[in-house]
Amino acid sequence: MKRIAIDMDEVIADFQAKHLTVYNDRFNEALTPEDLHGTRLWTLRPHIAAEVISLVDEPGFFRDLAVMDGSQEVIRELHEHYEIYIVTAAMEHPMSFLSKYEWLREHFPFLSEMNFVFCGDKSIIRADYLIDDTSRHFKGFEGQGILFTAAHNRYETGFVRVDNWQEVRRYFLSQNSAG
Amino acid sequence: MKRIAIDMDEVIADFQAKHLTVYNDRFNEALTPEDLHGTRLWTLRPHIAAEVISLVDEPGFFRDLAVMDGSQEVIRELHEHYEIYIVTAAMEHPMSFLSKYEWLREHFPFLSEMNFVFCGDKSIIRADYLIDDTSRHFKGFEGQGILFTAAHNRYETGFVRVDNWQEVRRYFLSQNSAG
Repeated sequence: MKRIAIDMDEVIADFQAKHLTVYNDRFNEALTPEDLHGTRLWTLRPHIAAEVISLVDEPGFFRDLAVMDGSQEVIRELHEHYEIYIVTAAMEHPMSFLSKYEWLREHFPFLSEMNFVFCGDKSIIRADYLIDDTSRHFKGFEGQGILFTAAHNRYETGFVRVDNWQEVRRYFLSQNSAG
Repeated sequence: MKRIAIDMDEVIADFQAKHLTVYNDRFNEALTPEDLHGTRLWTLRPHIAAEVISLVDEPGFFRDLAVMDGSQEVIRELHEHYEIYIVTAAMEHPMSFLSKYEWLREHFPFLSEMNFVFCGDKSIIRADYLIDDTSRHFKGFEGQGILFTAAHNRYETGFVRVDNWQEVRRYFLSQNSAG
């Protein structure tokens, strides 16, 4: 059975929506998702980048992120044909560990926690596919990288790209439904 | 540069000493390390196995484990010739995440946290070597498994085995010091 590694933030969990809400609230701004096309919130506000990033270190930040549309249904279906691992670069934000774990248990109860991986550098992952919104993780990855479209990566080229979970479904179920 | 994945408990962190101390204290017993030769504490006391295991879920259990003799010096040396990743099966004990992270930052400050991995099933790991006291992790591992001697595994056969960190040093530095 082939193995698919799946990132969390911006792929199954709507990190950006929460970050933008908390940011606007804190700094009395009204930035929209469109303002983040091709960039990151902390790149857009370089003079307060550290503060913008540290918003995610507040207790529970990752606990109530919205689930990305279609991710539960499609992963449940893929799970019948592939080994599914959730692989998140959590080491930069140690305060996120427990929230991320609880979030996964709540929203993806059909996955075993033995298939959750909290890491930093994803070149340590052995899988056939990696679905991720951050293209640098594909560099040391030996399998096929699949870029999941997010505001910040929409102008990047040179990658296999999917725009949403229905496209993930088509990619895997048309290619090789038997894994 | 070749890559060595290194387990935490019973390899760089003295899990057993702490577990035994807490157990004896809680149950008014006087078990010694010798009583655990070829077994585990929860196997030795099957009628209270769940309670014995849950001792490790108390806050901070993993924060003050002793560092295994020689592990810091040898890993610091190996680090010059190999990529070092610390890979721990933490998913069974989510309350351990933050303590394990802080412990690693304190005792192995020369390693990047980008090279820490908290997982369940270690077959997800891509590395050339895995040093571990639990032989079942070698089953799905594609590299060379190296069994680090612990009380519970001392009667297991059929594995490359090292008894301590000086033996790890000899294994790697006589074999291929250039990684």
